[in-house]
Amino acid sequence: MTHRLEPLLNPASIALIGASDNAGRIGGLPLDLLTRFGYAGHVYPVNPKYQEVFGLRCWPDIESVPQSVDLAVLAIGAGEVTPMLRRCHAHGVRAAIVYAAGFAEAGEEGTRLQRELEEFSAASGMLVAGPNCMGFANLNTQAHTAFASVFKTAPMQQEPGIVSLLTQSGNVCAAVYALARRQGLPFSQFINTGNEACIDFSEYLEYLARDEHTEIVLGYIEQLRDGGRFVQACRELQRRGKLLIALKAGATDKGAQAVRSHTSALAGDRRVYGAAFRQLDVIEAHDFAQMAQLAYLATLRHRSAGRRVAVLTMSGALGAILADRCIVAGLELPELPAELQQVLRGGIPDYGMVGNPVDVTGNVVNDPGFVRAALGALATSEAVDAVVVYAPGYMLDRMADALAEVARAHPRLFAAIDTGAAQCRQALRDAGVAVFDDIGLAVSALAPFLLWCDARRQRNGKEPAALVEADAQAAIALPCHEAAARAHLQHFGLADTSRHARDADQAVAQADALGYPVALKIVSADLPHKTEAGGVALQLGDADAVRNAYDRVVAAAARHAPRARLDGVLVQRMERGVAELIVGATRDPVFGPVLTVGLGGVLTELYQDTAHRLLPIDAAEAEAMLRELKVFPLLDGYRGKPKADLAAACRAMVAVGQALLATPQAAEIEVNPLLVKEAGQGVAVLDALILPISQSFIDP
Amino acid sequence: MTHRLEPLLNPASIALIGASDNAGRIGGLPLDLLTRFGYAGHVYPVNPKYQEVFGLRCWPDIESVPQSVDLAVLAIGAGEVTPMLRRCHAHGVRAAIVYAAGFAEAGEEGTRLQRELEEFSAASGMLVAGPNCMGFANLNTQAHTAFASVFKTAPMQQEPGIVSLLTQSGNVCAAVYALARRQGLPFSQFINTGNEACIDFSEYLEYLARDEHTEIVLGYIEQLRDGGRFVQACRELQRRGKLLIALKAGATDKGAQAVRSHTSALAGDRRVYGAAFRQLDVIEAHDFAQMAQLAYLATLRHRSAGRRVAVLTMSGALGAILADRCIVAGLELPELPAELQQVLRGGIPDYGMVGNPVDVTGNVVNDPGFVRAALGALATSEAVDAVVVYAPGYMLDRMADALAEVARAHPRLFAAIDTGAAQCRQALRDAGVAVFDDIGLAVSALAPFLLWCDARRQRNGKEPAALVEADAQAAIALPCHEAAARAHLQHFGLADTSRHARDADQAVAQADALGYPVALKIVSADLPHKTEAGGVALQLGDADAVRNAYDRVVAAAARHAPRARLDGVLVQRMERGVAELIVGATRDPVFGPVLTVGLGGVLTELYQDTAHRLLPIDAAEAEAMLRELKVFPLLDGYRGKPKADLAAACRAMVAVGQALLATPQAAEIEVNPLLVKEAGQGVAVLDALILPISQSFIDP
Repeated sequence: MTHRLEPLLNPASIALIGASDNAGRIGGLPLDLLTRFGYAGHVYPVNPKYQEVFGLRCWPDIESVPQSVDLAVLAIGAGEVTPMLRRCHAHGVRAAIVYAAGFAEAGEEGTRLQRELEEFSAASGMLVAGPNCMGFANLNTQAHTAFASVFKTAPMQQEPGIVSLLTQSGNVCAAVYALARRQGLPFSQFINTGNEACIDFSEYLEYLARDEHTEIVLGYIEQLRDGGRFVQACRELQRRGKLLIALKAGATDKGAQAVRSHTSALAGDRRVYGAAFRQLDVIEAHDFAQMAQLAYLATLRHRSAGRRVAVLTMSGALGAILADRCIVAGLELPELPAELQQVLRGGIPDYGMVGNPVDVTGNVVNDPGFVRAALGALATSEAVDAVVVYAPGYMLDRMADALAEVARAHPRLFAAIDTGAAQCRQALRDAGVAVFDDIGLAVSALAPFLLWCDARRQRNGKEPAALVEADAQAAIALPCHEAAARAHLQHFGLADTSRHARDADQAVAQADALGYPVALKIVSADLPHKTEAGGVALQLGDADAVRNAYDRVVAAAARHAPRARLDGVLVQRMERGVAELIVGATRDPVFGPVLTVGLGGVLTELYQDTAHRLLPIDAAEAEAMLRELKVFPLLDGYRGKPKADLAAACRAMVAVGQALLATPQAAEIEVNPLLVKEAGQGVAVLDALILPISQSFIDP
Repeated sequence: MTHRLEPLLNPASIALIGASDNAGRIGGLPLDLLTRFGYAGHVYPVNPKYQEVFGLRCWPDIESVPQSVDLAVLAIGAGEVTPMLRRCHAHGVRAAIVYAAGFAEAGEEGTRLQRELEEFSAASGMLVAGPNCMGFANLNTQAHTAFASVFKTAPMQQEPGIVSLLTQSGNVCAAVYALARRQGLPFSQFINTGNEACIDFSEYLEYLARDEHTEIVLGYIEQLRDGGRFVQACRELQRRGKLLIALKAGATDKGAQAVRSHTSALAGDRRVYGAAFRQLDVIEAHDFAQMAQLAYLATLRHRSAGRRVAVLTMSGALGAILADRCIVAGLELPELPAELQQVLRGGIPDYGMVGNPVDVTGNVVNDPGFVRAALGALATSEAVDAVVVYAPGYMLDRMADALAEVARAHPRLFAAIDTGAAQCRQALRDAGVAVFDDIGLAVSALAPFLLWCDARRQRNGKEPAALVEADAQAAIALPCHEAAARAHLQHFGLADTSRHARDADQAVAQADALGYPVALKIVSADLPHKTEAGGVALQLGDADAVRNAYDRVVAAAARHAPRARLDGVLVQRMERGVAELIVGATRDPVFGPVLTVGLGGVLTELYQDTAHRLLPIDAAEAEAMLRELKVFPLLDGYRGKPKADLAAACRAMVAVGQALLATPQAAEIEVNPLLVKEAGQGVAVLDALILPISQSFIDP
């Protein structure tokens, strides 16, 4: 690999500037680690105070280091950093890690220092990691550049690493490493990004996506600086079948300070991160133990697995509890096929169960031949994707040989849960069986992992939705009124069924053409909130009603906002549908264009029942969004009501998304409500809004 | 204590019928345990095959046992059980445990055997536990009557036990015991109830509520046979400040097969169990590890604690992650008062944080004096109820002495989370600090426990709501039509604003009196679904409209159900309100009368946004129910809309509950919708329904 971060993450030589002979200090600890674990590259401690540290010759300054240096680690104060970087660069050093705090996180002077550092890096092309970071470790080469004592206390690693840690907090890096090493996870890279002045999380992720020594990434994210690059890196991970397990700080939405549209209120930053993660097959973890368990499971990712789980236990109660947890977490426990049940019935007493969960009963652990046959049948059944065995302590020990043998013989994922203290745990792990201490932790890892396996299989080879080119006439001047917004959306395939009328006569003529009853609505680019302005009249049954209403709404709007430009009214036929949706496209500050859908109305906000996707999406993804909604049954023939025109709703969602992508001057496009009629009858735009980037309204 | 279960759970002498000299068999294992752990009472093995087993004289039959026997343990086959019970009873044995399976769980013959056993127990008064159970253990007296090898493999217990296990599955009993013993929890009783032929879960719970050696109960429930007794036992636990931690099997509602009202559909068995648990201060656990952690926390229940948590850590990121999890779980992290922040600022560098979470930074662990001062200040602040310290590994070790000292000096609850491998864990535990391995498990135990502490404090001394006596005129003949239902509810304080009219003239007169517009609705005890019958007319603006509508609805209803008895119409003024609720009282098969409330309409079912309580409730509890609803903001002045008349809504809810309690012949009483008007303007019943126990409708 020749990624530009190579000298940082896989250096052939390392200089430590500010070297110390004390392993308790940040200038000493990396040297201790480098020598202790046998890093094979050159190490050059630099400090005029010492002749030798940790058995290595110590150089008085970087200039006196005789060979070329890939990576300089700067264990010096913030104020000295940029001058030292200049000297390193002049001496041919390719990359540097800056430990020092006191940069952008620390007020004005620090911000100035960081800007200086950034400018130097940009001008010189020198790679600078940090500042305010703990450093890195490449556990495959033992290139230790982190002042992290956890490498001394955590269990040593023998096998080649395939798990990389990438975090925006040094303490999180160390905490996850310690916990995961105690479970034997083999690490590749350990990366703490710090202030990300010159290199951000997403660029490291891009490196790891291409790194042949990384199969699984554990990420801790506070905020992404480059959402686009993050998306690209995740797509690269997807393509290569690698997995990112991410813990995102900030479980609650901060909430936009100035909410401009309904969609903005619904598409909080937290929800957009969540949507991006799902869309990019990133598994979101909620604590460190779950992260470690997920990574452990992911080391078994070459086994075939999916959401259809068979549970085998020796107790009806334990099976029921485990089944409950699995189902709540989104897994399926399919009824087992008759022929499989027959095999199981061959060795299970009457008071056991051959359904799913399978209860082999306590007696059966004395019959290893049958256990082997039962597990073998589950290992080859087409009806399930994974097998979870729950037997505490000695019960599991009795089944262990058979379980290990079957797991070795078949590529299916097997997991075992032992709430006792079984002796066989390591032997099972060696055979490729995932072993867990308890139901809760097991399911919190198994469920997202198995759903990821499903998603990976479904996406197999499928590229993300492509953008349909907007036609040239789709240009629109913003701000615009609703009639223009509707016309704009029509270019992207969302038909407009309303008519624009400039005076009362036109309004009556349009209403006659559309058929009664109709609604009138004031047209004005300055009045997005038409109801509040008195600018809406509903259920107009004849020409007289239309004529009266025309005068009424124009007068009310003029009273409400005397400076607002009025441009006649929209006439629309009153129609009935199955449901009203809100469909909105907004620009997320991190991820860019995002589509949001929910049921229209006040309850959607209270229930937070919305679905979100990074754009573009295609119709299949739009339907997946609708199916995510808790209110989806309402569209699907709920309680004998007619089914909604799902296909038309999906086309409308795609159109709104495409419109935003093709309209760079628009901040948001919202159709609210979108009336979804009965299947085959399409949709109707009941209101449409296009907000330009930084618009201010006359509307009070 | 002189509870009738005393001979079962605290026997002074034990006979084992079907004794074996093999510790691997069910007739041998209890004898092994009794002798191994030094049970001080008399033990009488009974089996003609042996002279001696486990160093004890073995008796040929129960009749030859010379002394009186408290408890006989029957390790014999199902068919022999009742004859042997007769012999035991004749010989003066007070109680028996029946291990044998093959009773009600095993088909027809088993059911017959169990009935025989039940009849014998009822007639003789002999206490019989099981059948199909694993037996018991009293860990304080070492009275082992369970064939559970877990007692040999789990760590021995030195101190007096205060935790009791009560489960409906032997395997769950053993699994939880093993897990909890590894964490050092001191057990008192170990009870597996089996088929509960003669003694059910609730009676054991009643024993434990009164047992001076039990402070905490870990319960596993599949189904309760006596909900009323369960409620009483839980109230006894509440009164004594004891805690039940329950795991209920069946996380998903099974769903009634034949749903009769909307309320029945909403009040699934799972939701009623959940409501009962909350109402009775029972903590619901979801897996065994969480159960054990909760019990461990509960051993610290004499410390002061509540939901307002201060988090102290040495890393902003770790603090933020922990704070997130706490808030999602329902805890509060209050901003710390200025004077407390001043104390903290004394030792925390600028780049640390004195808010909440408190980030003392990594440097501070080298300053134990300051750590002690900071923890001391948190220990005495009135602004918080509990303190959680998160510092991994050696970081926690550095703070451990100060933490232990402060925890010993102050009654406040302290918890520590160590995701590293700190040496100080046991020392902290010895000082009364709860120590956890990881954030996830810590919060999953801390949150419900701290909320329980709050609830316990709030309920302190408060008795449950008393039933208001219904007046004698409240009698009602069922089935009844809506007018009668409304009149009945009025007796309990829910005013009826509709008028009953028998013909069109009356209807017009009533409408004139009420003011227009009005609604008309057919009155018929046989037609609960009036809209479907065409029996409703809305928005009638004048007398003519009323007159026409009268004829129309009566004709439509007669067409819809020719055999239905019609009894005129209800006339009701059309009114506007803030929200429409569904308020229903039903009879749960386990817990009896239950009140359900939710927002009216189809979305309530889809979102499952309902609150439930066992009846009776008072107005305060009714308001707590409304505040539980996710849509509560809609009643509380959402987005500038008027506030709803909460007090009137609460009175209406209490009235519906009281009405069901006072109407034994009613299966359900439902007001749907209940229109809640603006504050001060009360409520209006828009529809009311009283269903008799087992009604069948003419309505097709």
